[in-house]
Amino acid sequence: MTRQQLIDHIRQKRSYLCIGLDTSIDKIPLHLASDPDAVFEFNKQIIDATRDACVAFKINTAFYEAMGVKGWQALEQTVNYLPSTHFKIADAKRGDIGATSSRYAKAFFENLNFDAITVTPYMGYDSIMPFLEYENKWTIVLGLTSNKGSEDFQQQKAGDNYLYESVFKKVSEWGTKENLMFVAGATKANVLSSIRKIVPDHFLLIPGVGFQGGSLAEVSKYGLNNNCGLLVNVSRAVIYAGKGENFAEGAAIIARQYQTEMMTYL
Amino acid sequence: MTRQQLIDHIRQKRSYLCIGLDTSIDKIPLHLASDPDAVFEFNKQIIDATRDACVAFKINTAFYEAMGVKGWQALEQTVNYLPSTHFKIADAKRGDIGATSSRYAKAFFENLNFDAITVTPYMGYDSIMPFLEYENKWTIVLGLTSNKGSEDFQQQKAGDNYLYESVFKKVSEWGTKENLMFVAGATKANVLSSIRKIVPDHFLLIPGVGFQGGSLAEVSKYGLNNNCGLLVNVSRAVIYAGKGENFAEGAAIIARQYQTEMMTYL
Repeated sequence: MTRQQLIDHIRQKRSYLCIGLDTSIDKIPLHLASDPDAVFEFNKQIIDATRDACVAFKINTAFYEAMGVKGWQALEQTVNYLPSTHFKIADAKRGDIGATSSRYAKAFFENLNFDAITVTPYMGYDSIMPFLEYENKWTIVLGLTSNKGSEDFQQQKAGDNYLYESVFKKVSEWGTKENLMFVAGATKANVLSSIRKIVPDHFLLIPGVGFQGGSLAEVSKYGLNNNCGLLVNVSRAVIYAGKGENFAEGAAIIARQYQTEMMTYL
Repeated sequence: MTRQQLIDHIRQKRSYLCIGLDTSIDKIPLHLASDPDAVFEFNKQIIDATRDACVAFKINTAFYEAMGVKGWQALEQTVNYLPSTHFKIADAKRGDIGATSSRYAKAFFENLNFDAITVTPYMGYDSIMPFLEYENKWTIVLGLTSNKGSEDFQQQKAGDNYLYESVFKKVSEWGTKENLMFVAGATKANVLSSIRKIVPDHFLLIPGVGFQGGSLAEVSKYGLNNNCGLLVNVSRAVIYAGKGENFAEGAAIIARQYQTEMMTYL
């Protein structure tokens, strides 16, 4: 997907909501549990119910790998079911030496047809370039994450900058606003304005709204740019909003609430 | 596997060789290519031929994920086939917020029965702790990697230290020498002596010998401690050493060469 297609979709939907399909077999409604494709069936109903309110879906690979081969099958089924209009993110946080990163790129961009993958920057340039080489695919590099552990290294001073600032600066030279995004956690919304000074035009993927406590209003205030420039992800607070047989309706209501709030900020 | 079991195995074999099963379908001998379980069949023969010369096997998940569901199956078959005497490493370089990292820990420690997993430190404490909580399992944190890109962030100054030094210092407080190792690239062998000042007792997993050009002699000189303290990994230079139907014999010869050299350093 191109940047322009993503921006057009955001304008059309008046939404920059990304829904995270962090689906756990132990959290889905009981009536689905006996279905051999329970995780996919759950995702399918969530996708159908929420697609009108969002522009992107994010699949965190950890939840699928925890189910082994069956989980990898559910991941494939799910990404194949996602509507072509929507931006499809593999939240995989991969990264390895160049020759190996290119295998991950093949896995997620060729075999699985994701539009984007999250990548960790610790191993530097050659760990990230194999992802950036794909046309109309996106590399989303971890900049500043939403968890407490971001204090341990990301928020340590490296010269005049914090490490995460060095990551934004250096990595933004390796790609363009057409193929590179960054993760910036919603739990540090006030830091977004300093991040925007480094990467005014890049899209930011914002986790941490919902159960992690980040504020959509704050994130939007400091993070939005002229072309929106944000994808705000909500996972558990949407997908587990409903209970029982009508679980997807509950998810749709919460997704629509986020979208309605986003409309006022755009 | 406990630390003592690993050390005993190293002493018995007089080897600290780890063999990396970075198996690509496009690099295995032609006569296997039509086998529906070609990758597993290749791995099986390599394991049988080299197990006497090594104490550990490392499976890099990228090569298996690049084959989708079939690859994940080959990974499961391979780890189940590995001898229980050997230390089994998932080279997965995972790491996410705590609740998600615990899913990865489940995937690799419970479902797949690896002894160890490589983890990236960028997201800090809560991304690493879920792995450390497993008894007799090992977390191998990326310290200083063997690739050129390690210059971009790892080898940047963070206060008085390089970032990788901060990682060794801080992370070594989160675990013990009984459940925590570090990756330290062989292509920076001379740096190992300064790393040994920070973590004198921890095991180090050393990639970069073989095709990446690291020297076993140098690594051993600067990295060995009283309990060996090293696992030196070789992947491509061993597993692709032989050609045709007798490919595994070629791998066995090279593995034995490494072991013979290691014997002289122990």
